[in-house]
Amino acid sequence: MHLTLIGIGTGNPEHLTLQAIRALNAQDLILIPRKGEGKADLAELRRAICEDVLTAKTTRIVEFDLPVRDEATTAYRQRVDDWHDAIAESWQQALAPHPEATRVALLVWGDPSLYDSTLRIAARLDPAPTLEVIPGITSMQALTAAHAIPVNTIGGPFLVTTGRQLRENGWPEGVETLVVMLDSGGAFETVAADGVHIWWGAYVGMAEQITCEGPLVEIGKEIIALRAKARAQHGWIMDIYILRKTP
Amino acid sequence: MHLTLIGIGTGNPEHLTLQAIRALNAQDLILIPRKGEGKADLAELRRAICEDVLTAKTTRIVEFDLPVRDEATTAYRQRVDDWHDAIAESWQQALAPHPEATRVALLVWGDPSLYDSTLRIAARLDPAPTLEVIPGITSMQALTAAHAIPVNTIGGPFLVTTGRQLRENGWPEGVETLVVMLDSGGAFETVAADGVHIWWGAYVGMAEQITCEGPLVEIGKEIIALRAKARAQHGWIMDIYILRKTP
Repeated sequence: MHLTLIGIGTGNPEHLTLQAIRALNAQDLILIPRKGEGKADLAELRRAICEDVLTAKTTRIVEFDLPVRDEATTAYRQRVDDWHDAIAESWQQALAPHPEATRVALLVWGDPSLYDSTLRIAARLDPAPTLEVIPGITSMQALTAAHAIPVNTIGGPFLVTTGRQLRENGWPEGVETLVVMLDSGGAFETVAADGVHIWWGAYVGMAEQITCEGPLVEIGKEIIALRAKARAQHGWIMDIYILRKTP
Repeated sequence: MHLTLIGIGTGNPEHLTLQAIRALNAQDLILIPRKGEGKADLAELRRAICEDVLTAKTTRIVEFDLPVRDEATTAYRQRVDDWHDAIAESWQQALAPHPEATRVALLVWGDPSLYDSTLRIAARLDPAPTLEVIPGITSMQALTAAHAIPVNTIGGPFLVTTGRQLRENGWPEGVETLVVMLDSGGAFETVAADGVHIWWGAYVGMAEQITCEGPLVEIGKEIIALRAKARAQHGWIMDIYILRKTP
């Protein structure tokens, strides 16, 4: 089996690259995970993308239910590993009735390289498929585009990290700019806000996009409120932000 | 004036997003910088992209010569600032004969947010234009796609930095994964290679793409040789790599 992971960007169907469209049309089968009601928008988006750009008549679309993480497993790494095993198993089950499908693809939110587990799940398949990755626009790029800002200062480094890391380990020594992803909510409240600027966005790239930027000390609480309201309204939220220490 | 910075990806014309193609066709004028013979490929690529995807008959393409950096200015920041001033000046000169052009775009290699000066140059324009950014595939994503790897470990942070930073400041404390861009050549030779894995690529995403990966201690010299050969062959090189400390 040849498995292609196709980055589709962050919810704007126009984030699709010509390469992604060509790859989609070269498949025998496209696997679409269903994530349950809370994130229904994402399966819907994948279906809409296939409907919009699939011109190949021979490509079959197969949906499957994503297993849920067992929150009873307390160790974070073990919980993630078990979950990836379970997802690989559900891919195999979804593919089993289609042994003729030798070219299979998954549509990956954002880019398959960035805080995404699809490559790790693919590594669990037996027999191992040959792998191909098509890059896609990430939420980091959708965020900087929305704010029309560079992510780095001139020639300066930046650290890409998670809400969990920021919460548990604080602001890393010697780093001026942080990009924080996968925050379950407001990890920026755990850092000393003085002299920190924040560029925040939720649903970046999508029609629902909301953004906000300013000194963290002034707008931190506003973002928390915005986030809670948007989450209640849409039933789910994905947000991302850049923090920079200003001299 | 409404100025749109359009990320075009890293040299594969199929990196273009549908959003980029739509934006290109909405312009009165597209500015194409000529960088001189050494990097002729890049102006050529921009011309080819316009030829391929421009269907709007009213879009005018205007080329201009990029000023060169004054290497006599020894302070790095000053040299960069002066250069950006000079580029803004050449944009103004190139646009002066076309006062009717209210929608103007530049095609930005990679993504306008990542180690690119176009946003900073745009900020120098007087009167200030309204700004729009269209994200594009970065060389970081083209590199990870070429190697079919995630850039981060599970939930782990990574630092994006430059060859200059690595050379001058060494491997930053507490960081496991580095993405090194804008390296004038072999900054990885300045770090302790033991236990470090490297994923390297040059011309990532382009037809000329070359990649190489392995323990740094084993393949560092090979990469230096590959790089020198490729640079001699093509007359220019752009490379990028990921370094990870393995336990």
